[in-house]
Amino acid sequence: MSKRNLTLLTDLYELTMMQGYYEKGQNEKVIFDVFFRQNPCNNGYSVCAGLDQVIDYIKNLHFTYEDVDYLRGLGIFKEDFLHYLSGFHFSGDIYAIPEGTVVFPKEPLLKVIAPIMEAQLVETAILNIINHQSLIATKTSRIVFAANGDGIMEFGLRRAQGPDAGLYGARAAMIGGCVGTSNVLAGQMFDVPVMGTHAHSWIMSFPDEYTAFRTYAEMYPDNCTLLVDTYDTLKSGVPNAIRVFREFKDSGKPLNKYGIRLDSGDLAYLSKEARKMLDDAGFPEATICASNDLDEFLLHDLKMQGAAIDSWGVGTNLITSKDCPSFGGVYKLAAIQNEEGEFVPKIKISENTEKITNPGNKTIYRIYEKKSGKIKADLICFSDEVIDIEQDLLLFDPIETWKKTKLSGGTYTVREILVPVFKNGECIYKSPTLKEIASYCCSEKDTLWDETKRLFYPHRVYVDLSKKLYDVKKSLLDQMNMTD
Amino acid sequence: MSKRNLTLLTDLYELTMMQGYYEKGQNEKVIFDVFFRQNPCNNGYSVCAGLDQVIDYIKNLHFTYEDVDYLRGLGIFKEDFLHYLSGFHFSGDIYAIPEGTVVFPKEPLLKVIAPIMEAQLVETAILNIINHQSLIATKTSRIVFAANGDGIMEFGLRRAQGPDAGLYGARAAMIGGCVGTSNVLAGQMFDVPVMGTHAHSWIMSFPDEYTAFRTYAEMYPDNCTLLVDTYDTLKSGVPNAIRVFREFKDSGKPLNKYGIRLDSGDLAYLSKEARKMLDDAGFPEATICASNDLDEFLLHDLKMQGAAIDSWGVGTNLITSKDCPSFGGVYKLAAIQNEEGEFVPKIKISENTEKITNPGNKTIYRIYEKKSGKIKADLICFSDEVIDIEQDLLLFDPIETWKKTKLSGGTYTVREILVPVFKNGECIYKSPTLKEIASYCCSEKDTLWDETKRLFYPHRVYVDLSKKLYDVKKSLLDQMNMTD
Repeated sequence: MSKRNLTLLTDLYELTMMQGYYEKGQNEKVIFDVFFRQNPCNNGYSVCAGLDQVIDYIKNLHFTYEDVDYLRGLGIFKEDFLHYLSGFHFSGDIYAIPEGTVVFPKEPLLKVIAPIMEAQLVETAILNIINHQSLIATKTSRIVFAANGDGIMEFGLRRAQGPDAGLYGARAAMIGGCVGTSNVLAGQMFDVPVMGTHAHSWIMSFPDEYTAFRTYAEMYPDNCTLLVDTYDTLKSGVPNAIRVFREFKDSGKPLNKYGIRLDSGDLAYLSKEARKMLDDAGFPEATICASNDLDEFLLHDLKMQGAAIDSWGVGTNLITSKDCPSFGGVYKLAAIQNEEGEFVPKIKISENTEKITNPGNKTIYRIYEKKSGKIKADLICFSDEVIDIEQDLLLFDPIETWKKTKLSGGTYTVREILVPVFKNGECIYKSPTLKEIASYCCSEKDTLWDETKRLFYPHRVYVDLSKKLYDVKKSLLDQMNMTD
Repeated sequence: MSKRNLTLLTDLYELTMMQGYYEKGQNEKVIFDVFFRQNPCNNGYSVCAGLDQVIDYIKNLHFTYEDVDYLRGLGIFKEDFLHYLSGFHFSGDIYAIPEGTVVFPKEPLLKVIAPIMEAQLVETAILNIINHQSLIATKTSRIVFAANGDGIMEFGLRRAQGPDAGLYGARAAMIGGCVGTSNVLAGQMFDVPVMGTHAHSWIMSFPDEYTAFRTYAEMYPDNCTLLVDTYDTLKSGVPNAIRVFREFKDSGKPLNKYGIRLDSGDLAYLSKEARKMLDDAGFPEATICASNDLDEFLLHDLKMQGAAIDSWGVGTNLITSKDCPSFGGVYKLAAIQNEEGEFVPKIKISENTEKITNPGNKTIYRIYEKKSGKIKADLICFSDEVIDIEQDLLLFDPIETWKKTKLSGGTYTVREILVPVFKNGECIYKSPTLKEIASYCCSEKDTLWDETKRLFYPHRVYVDLSKKLYDVKKSLLDQMNMTD
């Protein structure tokens, strides 16, 4: 993606609004927040991802001659504005929560502070990138959780929603905890393990299944997984695989890593039967890999039923997040700088209390219980607020304000999770490698209580507002004649 | 996409199988079919799309020095095979059903005839592209059908699964019947109308809603749609919009095209109230556009309830095909050429009759009722079969073979829908423009009976096998000791 010019990957209204601001000479600094209102798939948390691609996008923002020419042809933009666009670059600040961090509804994942014309332009692409990768990283986390330590391989490229969905979906899947992907281009671009064996067509292109297996084993003695369901799993596939494993063992050149893959039928029954056959034949170290329309629910049930499966290839349901294929990240105006240089908080009201935005220039403190290292709550504050961890900290629910928790000084720690990424248009953030992000994400999940990680009806993590932010929000609402 | 090298956008197993064939000197010509087993969203038909991107992909297939170097680094490929890859190009034939055609389960949308190493490599990317665009074109067709003549605008970029899903999703949405897209890059790349107005942030960046509306109208008097739900739709938004419309009318410079957009609340109630207010104020020609989590079901219900909405912006549910986010296209081996140059039919069996493939080198005749021009059935035949439309034609269900229909000679017409696209690696197909494809797709839907187009429990279109194909399939199954 870094070589592609995505500057026009935006909604037309961003450009018509930009021209509106341009014509009015209205280009004050503003703050926009990216946040979401609900975890996908009823999960207890989300995993944010996509920042590295946002950074590439912002760095590469520029209107080429062809872009300006195309816009001119639309007949709605004036020459002075088109001239401005031809010299456009991003000059603002961006703060973001690092990729792989566990995040919760309503907190800003990313904050843009920039002249309104610039801040408006970047809305659509930022949302597109963050929404997609955070969705897949979160869905993958659920599947990895259900696998309870077994490896999950990402096999979804053929069913992904276009090339990027396969490519950046694989990236997000690695962040969410996959051990590898079948996608070779993702392997090349992101330096992650690529995996795979053979297809039914391999078997069908040989005179018989045994010959196909034998040939494959000769080619790949170090990593030989045989697909056993082309004809009949238990009557033909597994016996032929065992015959090949035995021939290599008897020849004195045993296969190094080997096993079978099941891709149809009832995976609980077939895997248990296959396990018995492999064990009885003297191949207890042969692994059993399964694929075929898996998701976290089926995986959870198969494990409950004692399926003898060591690793899982997950495709369609992971790469599209089938039961919830969108992450509802939005981009909302939070403040406008006045002539004195102060940011005046702005609020978007709604009849639905849940949809009212949080005003002002904000940051987020993550509060951990000191003794366990687990997350107690996230506290959204104004960016100039500080927390003295030696003092008691009173948290309260921003809707049902009588629900309060007091944390005693010394029993908790805090971490500011929004970090600077761009300053005056310059990237000041060093992106970790994908492996580092994946490892960080794994440690992030250790900061969640088990109750938050379960697949069904997880315990909600509290995201509270500081007293100061709550008061400003309430007074803005009161001014609008509404109550929160 | 045409400038990107997608050669490594493939599953690792395609490459490990290729090396297997290479090492065995096994590179006979084979035939693979792309087909699907079920229409998405329980629709009565699908719309195929993506061929133009498949053509780009095939034309650009080549392993760069970096690609080969990356593969070498994986430690599983030998130098002679890597050398072969560095000179790789596609030399085969491809047949496909043109984009925008209505298609049905089990028929080949695309047929690859090529040496097995080449045919295997291209599986994943072809499926990725065809599955994605056919999905979105089909979903869009449902939404367009529910709108019953109102314009549908594609507004989904921010929720699409990555940049390509937004870009090629917009392309597919135009094929499926959208009147335009908000996606500027899609507009530029595919020469389609781009549309949009302004966001809530526009309103919020002005001291008040009236000033924001007035400013927008001054900027865009030729196409001025005002978003009326930032504060209170009926108490503030619509009255302010009317005030602006009236001021322009009174000034003697009335707005050209103008109206309002609703983006929250109950769209049936609000649109009817807004319509009354606009009419009473003397603006019956003001249009009402609606958005906010629309899909074909909500749209259908809103129209049933008399919502006074003229055009619809549809985002998330269209661009992700939310209730069914994958199109299950598969790529299956159908035949292998023997030493005499004949294609020997191959079949993939399954305990599930529905999943058994159709063997051989096939084509598809679409059979129309002569007097209505509507589709009677599709007939899958061997590619050398011809139909004499002066003769009677007996169709029978390939599963329940006692279900028969006889078409009398002279009462039907036929059209072969698979057309040649590549011949010996050369593209011999001239792609229509996107506008031409969209217009063709619209006429294609006219060949469907109303019963097939409805949203709920549509009538299934018959896809039958020729007697000759049925007999070959049955004998292959019998050889495998199974009955069809």
